[in-house]
Amino acid sequence: MEKVLSYIKDNEKRYLDELIEWLKIESISCDSTKNDETRKAGKWIADRIEKAGFENTRLIETGGHPVVYADWLHAEGKPTIMVYGHYDVQPTDPIEKWTTEPFNPTIKDGKIYGRGTSDDKGQLYTHICALEAMLKQDGKLPVNIKFFIEGEEEAGSEHSTPFVEQNKELLACDAVAVSDTAWHSKDIPTVIYALRGLCYMEFHVKGPKRDLHSGVYGGMLQNPLNAVGKLIASLQDENGVIQIPGFYDDVLPLKDEEKKEFAAIGNHDKEMMEDLGVNALWGEKGFTSLERNWGRPSMDVNGIWGGFSGEGAKTVITADGGFKVSSRLVANQNPDKIKKLFEDYINEQCPPGVTVETIYHHGGEPIMVDIDNPFLRAGQRAFEKAFGKKPTMVREGASIPITATFVKELKAAPIMVGFGLPDDNIHSNDEKLDLDNFYKGITCNALMYTEFAK
Amino acid sequence: MEKVLSYIKDNEKRYLDELIEWLKIESISCDSTKNDETRKAGKWIADRIEKAGFENTRLIETGGHPVVYADWLHAEGKPTIMVYGHYDVQPTDPIEKWTTEPFNPTIKDGKIYGRGTSDDKGQLYTHICALEAMLKQDGKLPVNIKFFIEGEEEAGSEHSTPFVEQNKELLACDAVAVSDTAWHSKDIPTVIYALRGLCYMEFHVKGPKRDLHSGVYGGMLQNPLNAVGKLIASLQDENGVIQIPGFYDDVLPLKDEEKKEFAAIGNHDKEMMEDLGVNALWGEKGFTSLERNWGRPSMDVNGIWGGFSGEGAKTVITADGGFKVSSRLVANQNPDKIKKLFEDYINEQCPPGVTVETIYHHGGEPIMVDIDNPFLRAGQRAFEKAFGKKPTMVREGASIPITATFVKELKAAPIMVGFGLPDDNIHSNDEKLDLDNFYKGITCNALMYTEFAK
Repeated sequence: MEKVLSYIKDNEKRYLDELIEWLKIESISCDSTKNDETRKAGKWIADRIEKAGFENTRLIETGGHPVVYADWLHAEGKPTIMVYGHYDVQPTDPIEKWTTEPFNPTIKDGKIYGRGTSDDKGQLYTHICALEAMLKQDGKLPVNIKFFIEGEEEAGSEHSTPFVEQNKELLACDAVAVSDTAWHSKDIPTVIYALRGLCYMEFHVKGPKRDLHSGVYGGMLQNPLNAVGKLIASLQDENGVIQIPGFYDDVLPLKDEEKKEFAAIGNHDKEMMEDLGVNALWGEKGFTSLERNWGRPSMDVNGIWGGFSGEGAKTVITADGGFKVSSRLVANQNPDKIKKLFEDYINEQCPPGVTVETIYHHGGEPIMVDIDNPFLRAGQRAFEKAFGKKPTMVREGASIPITATFVKELKAAPIMVGFGLPDDNIHSNDEKLDLDNFYKGITCNALMYTEFAK
Repeated sequence: MEKVLSYIKDNEKRYLDELIEWLKIESISCDSTKNDETRKAGKWIADRIEKAGFENTRLIETGGHPVVYADWLHAEGKPTIMVYGHYDVQPTDPIEKWTTEPFNPTIKDGKIYGRGTSDDKGQLYTHICALEAMLKQDGKLPVNIKFFIEGEEEAGSEHSTPFVEQNKELLACDAVAVSDTAWHSKDIPTVIYALRGLCYMEFHVKGPKRDLHSGVYGGMLQNPLNAVGKLIASLQDENGVIQIPGFYDDVLPLKDEEKKEFAAIGNHDKEMMEDLGVNALWGEKGFTSLERNWGRPSMDVNGIWGGFSGEGAKTVITADGGFKVSSRLVANQNPDKIKKLFEDYINEQCPPGVTVETIYHHGGEPIMVDIDNPFLRAGQRAFEKAFGKKPTMVREGASIPITATFVKELKAAPIMVGFGLPDDNIHSNDEKLDLDNFYKGITCNALMYTEFAK
């Protein structure tokens, strides 16, 4: 192990240079004008994995963005670990909010800034570096490894999820190592045993078939934008309770011991308010902010549009408007069931004089891993060695929808050992990754794969 | 008069060609990048008025877009009529909804399509044509005439209104002829005795100081777009009653005779629903749609924005969002008072965790002219002669804010003799003017100025 760790140390600069090369590829999976770039990012990482010493490396077509597969299966009698991650990234708009160029990675104060640095290229790359070091120094790995890297995680894994369902043998494994999450804070390394799911909807509200003058028509008809407001307002009451009938039916209540573990982290509401510049935190009454984010479903409007938003004042009643809204789900909610309840509710709330069209973007089931899962415990030990601190075991508010498919189809627990930090600005402007976490993450992974063999 | 009317007939083609030249100038007053074009449109009409035989023609600076003044004051002992109109136009977006080019006027099926055809260049131009014909044929006019044409009616007359207040002597007159309104339908020529006022507000809702990932943060804080929905929804109840305390305090109730006159026009709700393609009309309970549009205040959201509205699904909690909203006011509401009530109400409704910033765009007082005003009656007689049908006397839902200033500062009643039609699509895509109304409007004006002298 000594040799492996010093190899990692000696190659840090090269690892970073390679990562930068990969980050420059604009693999925005939900933007169809970037399809070529997205594929290029997949090809890049496949080539890199092959160069690291893996076998059977290939891009496999899925109907969407291709998946990357590779393996090394010579650790007889040892468990098989699948490394999962994604080579696609979020859009960059509003681009004017970035202080660096999103696809021209910039190093500043021990951090690397750019789209995909933390979510997920930078985090995923730590696994390739660690496994390369082990193969180069030891000529072998302590466990069997399969790579499964997708290119549409940020677009709902529309084709990657059925790919897993249809390739259970190829992907058969005992556990899945995932580095696509963040710690609770720089001082609190975090291993995660539960993720929220997602139900992402879009509603188009249609009124008159053309735009109208608000003086000539105002007062006579339902304004689609007033209706958008009414529909949004109908989703939650003033206590943050979601109003869709049946929405909470399958929610697993938080156990007292979970609440206790969360509370042990301490109350950081004040710091968060300061960091975000808000005068209050807010959400479902009766829960702490961590409980709301980790253990309760949420309901967020992600975008609204319609009418005139330019300079000045246009007195128009627009023909249509709309909004995107997503709900984060917790165990044991089911996104398909929620989608149906959601759509029915919006249709029922739709006021007279306008109609609503629904687009269902994607969903993801929430997951929970047993806290005593041996691979989870192995990850915890590696973290303690690499970062000098026992990591806390928490839930996480975000979703990695495909992890639910690993549980369901491969019967393999996702071990969520991420190296991100809460201020990484993922999905936002100025996304970054802490370089210290990047380098120590490589070491942590080398230790973890060794622990997995025990 | 015969000679005048046949001169008008003989010059129809030239009048239209000149109008087209004027319509091509992109005088969007609220778009500061079009300032040069807006001025050019003012200069164009000033030159044209001078050529028609008027004196003292000039562009006068106001701090905003200049006003056009001209006069002919040689009808001793006769009343002085001011011709009011505006050379500026509304923005054209969403440009993709236009089937013709907004600034390349297109003639189709007896109509001229383009921005400003009906609102207001085309309507205003009928006065210049009529007065030119009278001066050329008779060498004189039956009344004294002053032109006062502004360039920021579509932007709230911010500088033109104080100009009137500060130039009462220059603009002193007995009545103001205004052609900037529409008939009730092609079969119902309409003279208008009341206009609604306007209070136009814009609210910016600010949450976290940066965009956030909706999984990592969802449930912990107030989402600015959910808050936008709540604020919009708080403006009206399910019966269309505006919820701002004190909002209705100064509203003059509709008299029974007014309701009767409106009802005599007949109920055209079904035709309107069909024309607009909506499944219901909607508004304040207890009033017909005409009563709501003409005699009751309304509340319309004119634009909303915030977050991600592109293709796909971005799981973001945006840092801010906002909406533009305007209320049409009726006699005797005061826009300054409403503005204050409005802002206070929104601030009070603002949920915890976000803040609201208010921008007040502009307001306009509602007006009502006495139904027996002699100039109003003269206009009515001219309409009957020109169009072969006694016009109905109605209110109108739209606003011409500066008309309230004419009442207040010049003690001159605005005589609203418009030639637009309800399907002219003003403020919308494919704005048009009926050419038959354009030509007959010129004749009507020649008759009206003659009637004014009686």
